[in-house]
Amino acid sequence: MSDILQRLADIIEQRRQADPAQSYVASLFHKGQDGILQKVGEEAVEAILAAKSGKRDQVISETADLWFHTLVMLADCRLKPADVLMELERRFGLSGLEEKAARQRG
Amino acid sequence: MSDILQRLADIIEQRRQADPAQSYVASLFHKGQDGILQKVGEEAVEAILAAKSGKRDQVISETADLWFHTLVMLADCRLKPADVLMELERRFGLSGLEEKAARQRG
Amino acid sequence: MSDILQRLADIIEQRRQADPAQSYVASLFHKGQDGILQKVGEEAVEAILAAKSGKRDQVISETADLWFHTLVMLADCRLKPADVLMELERRFGLSGLEEKAARQRG
Amino acid sequence: MSDILQRLADIIEQRRQADPAQSYVASLFHKGQDGILQKVGEEAVEAILAAKSGKRDQVISETADLWFHTLVMLADCRLKPADVLMELERRFGLSGLEEKAARQRG
Repeated sequence: MSDILQRLADIIEQRRQADPAQSYVASLFHKGQDGILQKVGEEAVEAILAAKSGKRDQVISETADLWFHTLVMLADCRLKPADVLMELERRFGLSGLEEKAARQRG
Repeated sequence: MSDILQRLADIIEQRRQADPAQSYVASLFHKGQDGILQKVGEEAVEAILAAKSGKRDQVISETADLWFHTLVMLADCRLKPADVLMELERRFGLSGLEEKAARQRG
Repeated sequence: MSDILQRLADIIEQRRQADPAQSYVASLFHKGQDGILQKVGEEAVEAILAAKSGKRDQVISETADLWFHTLVMLADCRLKPADVLMELERRFGLSGLEEKAARQRG
Repeated sequence: MSDILQRLADIIEQRRQADPAQSYVASLFHKGQDGILQKVGEEAVEAILAAKSGKRDQVISETADLWFHTLVMLADCRLKPADVLMELERRFGLSGLEEKAARQRG
């Protein structure tokens, strides 16, 4: 399960140049950056509304949409999920001793 | 690197009950759901603005913020990153043969 | 021109019960509160992107969309534009002497 | 009451060059466009959350914040509230006969 974000990024990269009439991913790139960023904003709002409604299935589904569209945004910026994950790892000191220290700091 | 989202979720869970004056995570839970959801919205907007500015370092940093706060939102809903990742896996048929077929469909 | 927001609110109220297939306003109310709030979020993001692009015509058009959908949101909450305008007036002390003082404070 | 948006725009214009330490409006302009647009996004999310909570006083207050920050965004783009209000008037045919027709169309 763990590499799913990278595998999704690979699929997004493969579909980038596909026919926009056949591939949703290609249709997003075809709309251009503003179209991609609008979707990120829309999905964030939908995730917020789902959480506020307390509908857990919908929170899963809308957060999946949000993460997916942020992957498209990253691809559009020529970035990879690993760039973001490594930043999170760096911030939270999740490697070895730092992680232990971070946990003790709580 | 790959399990970072789950390890972050673990850290969030550990800090949930900490002193809000000492832990940013605890301070978010202390504000309650609306406070957490406001942060998701804010970080989405900041990621969008960073992408639109073409500042790649900032896109990494703001997307890290956005993903981090969606993890807090998920924790607040008693959900785990795996719930979202499995939903993405399911949608994109990323296991075995389905993945191959998905890639061929492009 | 000055009463346009109230006149728009009147139109929204008149169309609230219309056939959703015939009236965009009725279709929004038919979708329910989440549908209305999603539109507020979407239009805010589109206005932000237009401003960031420096496209002034688009800023006018997207801000018009945003204000229009906030009027629908207000109507859905049984509120009127005057409720918001009076709050702004109160905050900024725009009546008589207060206004003068506010202007002098700059 | 009706000219409040224009009077607010006048105040925003007067304060634009003030000391950012003394004037909130000046501090927004001092942060630059991204800072202003972030506030528009934040206030939209807060208005959405207030509406979803059904807290009418908070809806009034957050919508006031949202409209105020869109006025700052307009000022930053060298636009006036009248530009947006005239666009709304144009769309909804609110002058004379058109308005009557619009109302009959419902």
